[in-house]
Amino acid sequence: MARYIGVDIGGTNIVFGVVDEASNCLLFKKVATEADKGSTHVIQTIAAHILDLAEQTDEPILAVGVGVPGFVDHANGIAVSAVNLGWENYPVVAELEKLITIPIYINNDVRLYVYGEALAGAGRNYKHVLGVTLGTGIASAMVNEGQLYYGSGNRAGELGHITMPGNTYACKCGLVGCLETIASANGIVRQAKDAIIQGGNSLLKLWYPGDQIDKVTALDVSNAYDQGDILAIKVMEDTGVYLAKGLAYAINFYSPDLIVIGGGAAMAGERLLGPMKRQLQASILPLYWEGLSITIAQRVEDAGIIGGALYAKNQLS
Amino acid sequence: MARYIGVDIGGTNIVFGVVDEASNCLLFKKVATEADKGSTHVIQTIAAHILDLAEQTDEPILAVGVGVPGFVDHANGIAVSAVNLGWENYPVVAELEKLITIPIYINNDVRLYVYGEALAGAGRNYKHVLGVTLGTGIASAMVNEGQLYYGSGNRAGELGHITMPGNTYACKCGLVGCLETIASANGIVRQAKDAIIQGGNSLLKLWYPGDQIDKVTALDVSNAYDQGDILAIKVMEDTGVYLAKGLAYAINFYSPDLIVIGGGAAMAGERLLGPMKRQLQASILPLYWEGLSITIAQRVEDAGIIGGALYAKNQLS
Repeated sequence: MARYIGVDIGGTNIVFGVVDEASNCLLFKKVATEADKGSTHVIQTIAAHILDLAEQTDEPILAVGVGVPGFVDHANGIAVSAVNLGWENYPVVAELEKLITIPIYINNDVRLYVYGEALAGAGRNYKHVLGVTLGTGIASAMVNEGQLYYGSGNRAGELGHITMPGNTYACKCGLVGCLETIASANGIVRQAKDAIIQGGNSLLKLWYPGDQIDKVTALDVSNAYDQGDILAIKVMEDTGVYLAKGLAYAINFYSPDLIVIGGGAAMAGERLLGPMKRQLQASILPLYWEGLSITIAQRVEDAGIIGGALYAKNQLS
Repeated sequence: MARYIGVDIGGTNIVFGVVDEASNCLLFKKVATEADKGSTHVIQTIAAHILDLAEQTDEPILAVGVGVPGFVDHANGIAVSAVNLGWENYPVVAELEKLITIPIYINNDVRLYVYGEALAGAGRNYKHVLGVTLGTGIASAMVNEGQLYYGSGNRAGELGHITMPGNTYACKCGLVGCLETIASANGIVRQAKDAIIQGGNSLLKLWYPGDQIDKVTALDVSNAYDQGDILAIKVMEDTGVYLAKGLAYAINFYSPDLIVIGGGAAMAGERLLGPMKRQLQASILPLYWEGLSITIAQRVEDAGIIGGALYAKNQLS
């Protein structure tokens, strides 16, 4: 039986996994990225752990798929811009090929995460999967009948940077009102803090008195929600409504049959999905609503690894 | 040299063309649809003219592609819902195959129009073409590297039914604020009439006094614009701004490298595209703007025919 290795490079950690033909992650490894030590160090770390995993595996490793956080030219194996790693037009595949003889493919980390979830997670029984990650920002990718959708310049799927009327937050991209400024995990925190600064009452004020308010996380807002905190409930409601209005556009253009929500804020579950679904039903044609499933990502831990491994496998054939 | 026939069924007329391997339309024919005489009559009309064109052509006709106005199950050759023709779950391909032995394929008329424009019109040198038609309503289709994008249930591309904040017009689909209620050819007329009813001054009032205001067309608004009519200029500006805001969403999701605008209102040209482009540049990331061309459809007369013929040709291979 053949094996594949999936690698998911994050700003803090790199995770590795050996994946079998049935999309099981057999071996798992997590190491520090240490991007500050330079690109060569990171590449050497990745190569060493790939070789180590290959040695631990009896079956042959046919290919490696690597997810890079940022803008990736997957056809040429280049990380065009990965800000968190400090990489600009960095030839990841060429550099790794100096150290490893196994075929290597790279792609954007969110695309591979959604690819893994679509093919071997919540999307297994769906043909048109829109995956959305709610974290520091908002990212998305679309998989149609097993194929990633890229668009011109691989720029498709910028759900995080559609501008939402009523949202006055400035985005670091230069636009005003981007969806990710208000409906990401960071956006949830921002809304809660702003409501408190404007005099709103909340358990969050008790938990984080005075200047400590800056330490509030999206998980805290979710916990306050569970205590019946009115401010937290309003933040979750508003976030769900914004998300729904953004997704309504994506649905009209892509027509997915499944939307998978992943990333940190997905852990809020129905607290967020409840209001989101209610608004969504009011915002799209019944034809879309009836054909649509919405769920939380299944493979939270290893979707990126599985996606990388499956992507590499499918590039071979 | 092989030939293909493209057929474009409209509510009023059906147009036919014989198309060669270089996407030239060699023979052209236009007949009345007469949908009121029933589906069998329409099918017999189509079959008779296909056979007639085949007889006039020395080269063999390898396939026929037919555009149907409405919701089409192209894989099974069924017109699921074509309101203007009175067709519901009508097996167009099976019915035509009773009368013709040439392989026949059908698809949605707008998809074939955009397919023709993408492959043999303004999109010839582009890889990711978003086509938009501004007529009674607004429709769109996306062609990626020569492939039409369908989405789940073939429902992708409903640009006309994304709801636009600030637009309070009710749409016949049941939603409020759909883009097509305000930015289609009909939407242009509606805005002009409403502005006049609310006391606005305009040449249109001189041209169509009193109750005759109901006869205003989008072309009249365009003509008033050319006379420096302030009301008409504002209508075109507002329409362009709404269109841009809707297209901004499509660009973030699809990442086209070309947007082709067709349909009746496209004849307004820069009157509409000028304000549209200005707003668009402010609404999308510079990365998108720099990689994007915007143009008016080239093959106004025969894009649907060419698209049908090319679609049929490519289904064969």
